[in-house]
Amino acid sequence: MTTAHGAIETPAFIPVGTQASVKAVSPRELRELEAQIILGNTYHLFVRPGIEVIRDFGGLHKFMNWNGPILTDSGGYQIFSLAKLRKITEEGAQFQNHVDGQPAFISPEIAMEIQAALGSDVAMVLDECAPYPCEYDYAARSAQMTARWAARCKRAVEANASPARTMSPANLNAAAGTVAATTVNQLLFGIVQGATFDDLRKSSAQAIADLDFDGYAIGGVSVGEPEEEMMRAVESAEPCLPKDRPRYAMGLGTPPQLLEMTARGMDMFDCVLPTRLARNGTAFTASGTINLKNAEFALDKKPIEEDCSCPSCREFARGYIRHLVKAEEILGLRLITLHNLHFYLALMNRARTEIERGTFDQFRRGFVMEYKVRDVDLAKL
Amino acid sequence: MTTAHGAIETPAFIPVGTQASVKAVSPRELRELEAQIILGNTYHLFVRPGIEVIRDFGGLHKFMNWNGPILTDSGGYQIFSLAKLRKITEEGAQFQNHVDGQPAFISPEIAMEIQAALGSDVAMVLDECAPYPCEYDYAARSAQMTARWAARCKRAVEANASPARTMSPANLNAAAGTVAATTVNQLLFGIVQGATFDDLRKSSAQAIADLDFDGYAIGGVSVGEPEEEMMRAVESAEPCLPKDRPRYAMGLGTPPQLLEMTARGMDMFDCVLPTRLARNGTAFTASGTINLKNAEFALDKKPIEEDCSCPSCREFARGYIRHLVKAEEILGLRLITLHNLHFYLALMNRARTEIERGTFDQFRRGFVMEYKVRDVDLAKL
Repeated sequence: MTTAHGAIETPAFIPVGTQASVKAVSPRELRELEAQIILGNTYHLFVRPGIEVIRDFGGLHKFMNWNGPILTDSGGYQIFSLAKLRKITEEGAQFQNHVDGQPAFISPEIAMEIQAALGSDVAMVLDECAPYPCEYDYAARSAQMTARWAARCKRAVEANASPARTMSPANLNAAAGTVAATTVNQLLFGIVQGATFDDLRKSSAQAIADLDFDGYAIGGVSVGEPEEEMMRAVESAEPCLPKDRPRYAMGLGTPPQLLEMTARGMDMFDCVLPTRLARNGTAFTASGTINLKNAEFALDKKPIEEDCSCPSCREFARGYIRHLVKAEEILGLRLITLHNLHFYLALMNRARTEIERGTFDQFRRGFVMEYKVRDVDLAKL
Repeated sequence: MTTAHGAIETPAFIPVGTQASVKAVSPRELRELEAQIILGNTYHLFVRPGIEVIRDFGGLHKFMNWNGPILTDSGGYQIFSLAKLRKITEEGAQFQNHVDGQPAFISPEIAMEIQAALGSDVAMVLDECAPYPCEYDYAARSAQMTARWAARCKRAVEANASPARTMSPANLNAAAGTVAATTVNQLLFGIVQGATFDDLRKSSAQAIADLDFDGYAIGGVSVGEPEEEMMRAVESAEPCLPKDRPRYAMGLGTPPQLLEMTARGMDMFDCVLPTRLARNGTAFTASGTINLKNAEFALDKKPIEEDCSCPSCREFARGYIRHLVKAEEILGLRLITLHNLHFYLALMNRARTEIERGTFDQFRRGFVMEYKVRDVDLAKL
């Protein structure tokens, strides 16, 4: 996938930089980890520091000093999961933010304007993410509204990118510092909804595909449903999506889930697991997660994972990292975060190699068999 | 000053790595900041992870992957400031640690044994740090006991380092993994006490100097006394200390204090200010501290300090760092910590250059005049 800030090889993992920072990690470290793209959460940035601040800095790349590709979500998911007193109508979403309770309103058009100001390389349409479990009727109406919102997002972007508006110096001046100035080359992805209902997933995928986006996301997965339901939701939607566009499974997942989703035609993944679990002392290994707080690691001279080439494993022993975590030293969660991000990024790197070699399925089956998923990790999602 | 892990140019600032980590900073970053030596707090390491763990890793250097010089304090100050139910007798200090309340006892001999196991390059004698304010009689008795404890520390080290013990293979085997194995080339510093009383400071300095240590520290300063009292305490003791040994002013101070102490013959300083204030959003500049939480910095594109060559100032704007601090992102305090440590280390670097050029006094007066000390910073000490 080609973006204004560089190409991305897929399948790709997208580290989550919610508040213009991948938690505990510097942009330089992200480059050293060879992260290809990172994610910024529009809702969080809208609330703090506010879009005017980031616009004033010339966009999110300059604000946070990350010169690689950035994907921003639309803010929809966070409005539904974090904000208070929210009211959703056909027009958009009214809410009070979770930080200082200020009321705000985001419509599909405003979501596009905000992401244009952020200047991300990939923008997402505003969608409604149905909860789990969800009644069929609600899921159907919600998916239909999400499709209408997607069409409005597309029209809003096209209106701003129309030759009449972007080519005229007068209009360019009028738009300076607002939308048009930063939407050049921004890709726009549609989002499929439909909860856990096969026919809704299919009709949603078809409706979104008909709108012709640069890429397609599967939303409303990994919201508490059993893994089989998640797999089925993706399997239902996938055949309706154009084969020549990137597909993005939102908010996923465990390492085995990423490989299973790759096998089902998904190309991009974002997930807080590697950074969030690190802050709890949990590290990823090929055989599953380990919690470095455990007493068994107190005298352990081995790195988190043998033969791992990450900055933590090259320099530090489990016993030292355990001490740091127990003593609540920031360096502890920094070292585990670096390892976990490396683990996810290296897994996708390996998947790409195996796909090229035509040996991906064999690799996936072997990995999934060796990897023990622990319930406690899923509870952290 | 020459240590087992390299030479140190003085005056030198010693970043504080209380729990085997300079807070939020990696050893690699410390090397890039050109820190010459770091400090480990014996009391904290004794409590967690415990000396047996660090001994098992082969000492503090290997445990934390820092191959430069390390100075360890004796633990005395923390026993008096942090531990509970402490009881001090001629024999030593009985206390319950502040983490899990476990009772422990540290004598001068045990303090030496612990620091030998840590394998630090510079060990400190066990002392009693008198509080401020302090009655004359208490301060006198305490300084005399501190001198007797210093003599016991010296004897304990000499007993372990005696030729009979270190030259005999049989004795070496018997001592393997205990004291003698790690005390090779460990320097031992004495500590001057005497509270705010000139005659006690002089007699303490004389008594400690008579014991012939590798270096001399001024303790019991920066414990709440007015700055003039602190300066007088150092001025009283300094003439009694040998001119050919390093002098270490413990727990200091603000940037102007470091220069004033350097002018008064001090060579080494450790202080939590640069790391602790960073976690509160406070950054050091040549004109004093600034708090990056302040609204005035929201749109500020400048680095923390113009022309600063630290990793933060080379890459990030005040407005971005302000956002990170307000949003409680770890990267915010990381970036300020790096800047603040660089500020302290660069100040000492500059002081060395000015001393070599014979222009130190002029530099010091100019710096102190430009630098505005804020009460709020001193309250954080």
